[in-house]
Amino acid sequence: MKRLPTAKGPSTLPAINQRRLMRDLNAIGRIGIGNRGGVTRLVFSIKELRSRQVLIHLMRQAGLKIQIDGIGNIFGRLEGRDAKAPAVLAGSHLDTVIHGGKYDGPVGVIGALEAVRTIIEYKVPIQSPLEVVCFVGEESSRFGFSTLGSSLVAGEVQDNDLANAVDAQGAKLADVLASLGIVRKNLRGLARDPKSLKAYLELHIEQGPILEAIGKRIGLVTSIAAPSRFKVIFTGQADHSGTTPMQMRKDALVAAALLIAFIEKTCRKFSTMAKGRVVGTVGALKIEPGVINAVPGKTELLIDIRAITAQAKDRVTRIVKAEAQRIARKRKIGVEVLTIREEDPVPLDKRLLRLTRRICDEKDIVYEIMPSGAGHDAMQMAKITPAGMIFIPSQRGISHNPLEWTDPDDIGLGTQLLMETMIRVANEKL
Amino acid sequence: MKRLPTAKGPSTLPAINQRRLMRDLNAIGRIGIGNRGGVTRLVFSIKELRSRQVLIHLMRQAGLKIQIDGIGNIFGRLEGRDAKAPAVLAGSHLDTVIHGGKYDGPVGVIGALEAVRTIIEYKVPIQSPLEVVCFVGEESSRFGFSTLGSSLVAGEVQDNDLANAVDAQGAKLADVLASLGIVRKNLRGLARDPKSLKAYLELHIEQGPILEAIGKRIGLVTSIAAPSRFKVIFTGQADHSGTTPMQMRKDALVAAALLIAFIEKTCRKFSTMAKGRVVGTVGALKIEPGVINAVPGKTELLIDIRAITAQAKDRVTRIVKAEAQRIARKRKIGVEVLTIREEDPVPLDKRLLRLTRRICDEKDIVYEIMPSGAGHDAMQMAKITPAGMIFIPSQRGISHNPLEWTDPDDIGLGTQLLMETMIRVANEKL
Repeated sequence: MKRLPTAKGPSTLPAINQRRLMRDLNAIGRIGIGNRGGVTRLVFSIKELRSRQVLIHLMRQAGLKIQIDGIGNIFGRLEGRDAKAPAVLAGSHLDTVIHGGKYDGPVGVIGALEAVRTIIEYKVPIQSPLEVVCFVGEESSRFGFSTLGSSLVAGEVQDNDLANAVDAQGAKLADVLASLGIVRKNLRGLARDPKSLKAYLELHIEQGPILEAIGKRIGLVTSIAAPSRFKVIFTGQADHSGTTPMQMRKDALVAAALLIAFIEKTCRKFSTMAKGRVVGTVGALKIEPGVINAVPGKTELLIDIRAITAQAKDRVTRIVKAEAQRIARKRKIGVEVLTIREEDPVPLDKRLLRLTRRICDEKDIVYEIMPSGAGHDAMQMAKITPAGMIFIPSQRGISHNPLEWTDPDDIGLGTQLLMETMIRVANEKL
Repeated sequence: MKRLPTAKGPSTLPAINQRRLMRDLNAIGRIGIGNRGGVTRLVFSIKELRSRQVLIHLMRQAGLKIQIDGIGNIFGRLEGRDAKAPAVLAGSHLDTVIHGGKYDGPVGVIGALEAVRTIIEYKVPIQSPLEVVCFVGEESSRFGFSTLGSSLVAGEVQDNDLANAVDAQGAKLADVLASLGIVRKNLRGLARDPKSLKAYLELHIEQGPILEAIGKRIGLVTSIAAPSRFKVIFTGQADHSGTTPMQMRKDALVAAALLIAFIEKTCRKFSTMAKGRVVGTVGALKIEPGVINAVPGKTELLIDIRAITAQAKDRVTRIVKAEAQRIARKRKIGVEVLTIREEDPVPLDKRLLRLTRRICDEKDIVYEIMPSGAGHDAMQMAKITPAGMIFIPSQRGISHNPLEWTDPDDIGLGTQLLMETMIRVANEKL
């Protein structure tokens, strides 16, 4: 194995300032922190708005030209030598899930800011302008709507899509936008002209266990896996658990159990990279009546299947749905399959991947070429510009949890790689 | 198949008055009825107390001598020719589950009352006194404590057992008793002297689908199955459903699913009468975090295993617990098994069974010899006196539900059989 370099690698480019980077990341991480260490900055909440204000302050200190669009996406721009050249964007998001961690999102935003600050400090010449971006509402935790800001920039959202979203408190997204002075019908105008963009780069924690398990500090992302999400509802018959003989039962939970075991077995078969790196999860069950002395009459499964290719995902989804039908037929019970969401995996840009590989090789950074299992803003941006992602390890793979943790040296290394990539993209032909 | 006789069978004994029986059953059934047809008379609620008052009124009309013990069990007594002979008890309960049916319980109480009324009306000579009994709180729905009244009569409850029970509204059983003027420390004195009893007979709806399925109108009960209830808690690790490869997961729900499927398979193997007529049910699951985008880290199963012999029940329970351990070991996750309740099956009296068989044969009633899957007051009474039970069919096996239904002709037939049995037991040597 190659020697693991520090952020101060054998590059001719300056090194980012890891202390400054961590100071600002920690400042953001304190906003919305709870007494058990979890960070809660739901989109459009006071805490989330405050984190954006801190970012604006930091961007202003760095001397960036700030533009905030109609939904609240923040762009901090550093002009290049060619004022008319398309911009190189880099960023991520500052909103979090409920009781999340402090690095999911902010690492990409503050990392990009630190990269630009270093470029300014060392007067590194750049051709294309650079833009640090903070997208609004990447997490779906409040309104069930993920990558809100980047979807609008990519022109993917219709204002009608936003009309019916409601949070757990009963607040409607439409009312929240109105109360913040955001005019919903103007949102369509946020779609950015692809000609104004050269590329989008995002540094993010892996949120999975792979890098840690294989002892590598950098992941270069090939594509973003997309979920098929659907419900399977088995309807048997609720019966007394004492008086109903085994052979006269129509137990909806046993049917669900067989499907859960089948999903694991099938996804394991398709889990290699060659077969599409499929993952399948039953995360929740609703059982009726759900008491110890009744045979379950109805069971509802929430199923999430992802893969790095649409083909693999669709194939496994089809197999699972067919098995649900087979189980119901065999057990003479009812079954219903309802689609919740159907998305296609998004491939990231091959030229950007090649460029980051080259930089890693030059700097002796041991990297892993890997897909992203989770969704990110890059997934939306890829629709209008070449997009690339850099992963850094998540300790024990834990994310969306107060225990989320990444070593500061890994954050520094990822930020250094992000900066060098930004400079190369700004100065070279893709 | 033999001809199905009506209640007016080829007997020399008089026929019960089915119209009067149904009139009184319906009067009780209207107390606590909700707008969707469900009946709710939780123990010690106003509705349940009112149903007892109606019973007292009916007993008084019939000319029975009424005694109410310290918890509220009602005994309506008809003296026999031998005032010193031990009494033949017959009855059941009037309390219900939430949104239950109108026959679970009342059929046994009003049926016994109708039997005694017919005996009085036709001046049928009896040696031993007869007592119609209504036991308090057979259902566990309010305080989690089943067969309260009959347990006290059987001397099975310690007053301490009652100290900690609380209902869903937060009312303590101890406070409810005090507010009704019931002195808890006197309850121990309710245990009835076995010498004062000759037998206990209970007519009840089957609450299961067997009689309907085989087209028989009478079930003669051999024993009452008892549950082993326990929790199995699997502890794996909660992970992101998109980023965690299949082979790195510790999915607690998949472990639970394997155990659920195993329980069904095993209980089917032991479901014949010869193997103990085992039934096993997982009625409820608790999943953490329980969201569509997380691999379940923790799953708790509520398991109920019953059989007609302690040996069969213990054997299957042991097998299931061992399998839970094996699954956890194989998957390298944690497992914990917590006992909720451990009861032994109760055999009913063989002589009473032989007697009811003989009566059925004489009257050409096609019957089924069967165990009871559900618990009943007879289970407690069997501890102090010979106890017997007569089942009548439940339509589609449905119980504890507004759809609970039994044909009035079956109720009439069961009541006729109950009456004839009571007379024979009162007049013959067991």
